[in-house]
Amino acid sequence: MTKPEPPYYAVIFTSRKSAQASDGYEEMAELMDRLASEQPGYLGHQFFGGEDGSGVTISYWKDLEAIMAWRKNTEHAKAQARGQAGWYDWYELETCKVERVSRFADR
Amino acid sequence: MTKPEPPYYAVIFTSRKSAQASDGYEEMAELMDRLASEQPGYLGHQFFGGEDGSGVTISYWKDLEAIMAWRKNTEHAKAQARGQAGWYDWYELETCKVERVSRFADR
Repeated sequence: MTKPEPPYYAVIFTSRKSAQASDGYEEMAELMDRLASEQPGYLGHQFFGGEDGSGVTISYWKDLEAIMAWRKNTEHAKAQARGQAGWYDWYELETCKVERVSRFADR
Repeated sequence: MTKPEPPYYAVIFTSRKSAQASDGYEEMAELMDRLASEQPGYLGHQFFGGEDGSGVTISYWKDLEAIMAWRKNTEHAKAQARGQAGWYDWYELETCKVERVSRFADR
């Protein structure tokens, strides 16, 4: 993932899947990955998951406008509605302006 | 973890531990957790890890001043220096202003 110098944006999506999340979840997640990657201003994402179904996806964006455009995407809106209806026990979505970065070595 | 309404701050620490990370790493991590939690303006943190030693720790802070004070903490500075010397293959530290939050259900 190539990111510009700050400022850029990060969306921290912390969630726990519900026990019934298997029904269509993987297909939805793959579709969302693909659609997001086609979105102007999308820089990439990383996911880390725990064993209890909780995890965090951090997606990176050029600016706030790119995030807002993605939120208006029709398919994404459908997935959001379905997520609230059964895929997740809870989720938290934090939209963040990345102001500073420091790195040690290359990934 | 109780967070205020935005804006508040998040520090995204993405890293991969090196194969030699076992030497003193756990003790350092526990000490850093404890020292951070005593820091004024510290709100809490969450960690999610992958199987290859990579993972992300997201710590939350009341404001930028609280983060800067933590960076000046002597013990923390020693851990940073040692981290660069051998605990991590790489890391990336992003300091972010959380501008918006939305939640579905309670954690």
